[in-house]
Amino acid sequence: MKDLFDTLKFDQHGLIPAIIADHASHQVLMMAWMNRDSLGKTIASGYTHFYSRSRDKLWKKGEESGHTQRVRSIRTDCDADVLLIDVEQTGVACHEGYRSCFFRRLDGVMWAIDGDREVDPAAVYQKK
Amino acid sequence: MKDLFDTLKFDQHGLIPAIIADHASHQVLMMAWMNRDSLGKTIASGYTHFYSRSRDKLWKKGEESGHTQRVRSIRTDCDADVLLIDVEQTGVACHEGYRSCFFRRLDGVMWAIDGDREVDPAAVYQKK
Repeated sequence: MKDLFDTLKFDQHGLIPAIIADHASHQVLMMAWMNRDSLGKTIASGYTHFYSRSRDKLWKKGEESGHTQRVRSIRTDCDADVLLIDVEQTGVACHEGYRSCFFRRLDGVMWAIDGDREVDPAAVYQKK
Repeated sequence: MKDLFDTLKFDQHGLIPAIIADHASHQVLMMAWMNRDSLGKTIASGYTHFYSRSRDKLWKKGEESGHTQRVRSIRTDCDADVLLIDVEQTGVACHEGYRSCFFRRLDGVMWAIDGDREVDPAAVYQKK
């Protein structure tokens, strides 16, 4: 039987980009990378897990901050090489304290902050 | 002076992922890749241009179908390695005739169609 993973196109590093959006507002919160393990864990647990290329390890979103993402739906695109995952976001998606990681908007040739910082990152990450 | 491109992290192939969303509904329409040239053309023309890895060429979205994307805003994320571009979509984003390329939703271990086909692809692409 064809494996679910065989229906997706992972890149030469075994990774696929996962766009994470708020299930209600459709706002894009972040993009991160998944390998087969992290997608499997995401499906099995109902919470997003990613693969960190810089740390070479699987991580659960919010494992440190408590800002987890409960999965509502998983989609793929026409080429089956990108995922779009709708979530219920606890807290904020961005480690800088913004609801979405996309808080900078191009204004001329500069990036302007366009988003409210809802959480003080120092307060979230100093707990450990 | 620092170049706009120097503020972004292109990958080892000189590419950055660009998530395209509808400016009004926030629905994610597609994801494609940009290099410096295609981002420059996107900014200069006000219409999305991408880099095709399979064809190794720059292309304007809608150049064949007429289904262009007028840029409303360009954002980047906290790591400056992904773009989020809000657009006014003419016609549909997907070459298969769906408004969004993400028209397949995971249902158990199968992908179910979840999206309305608004356009007959044969009618769009046979014109040439």
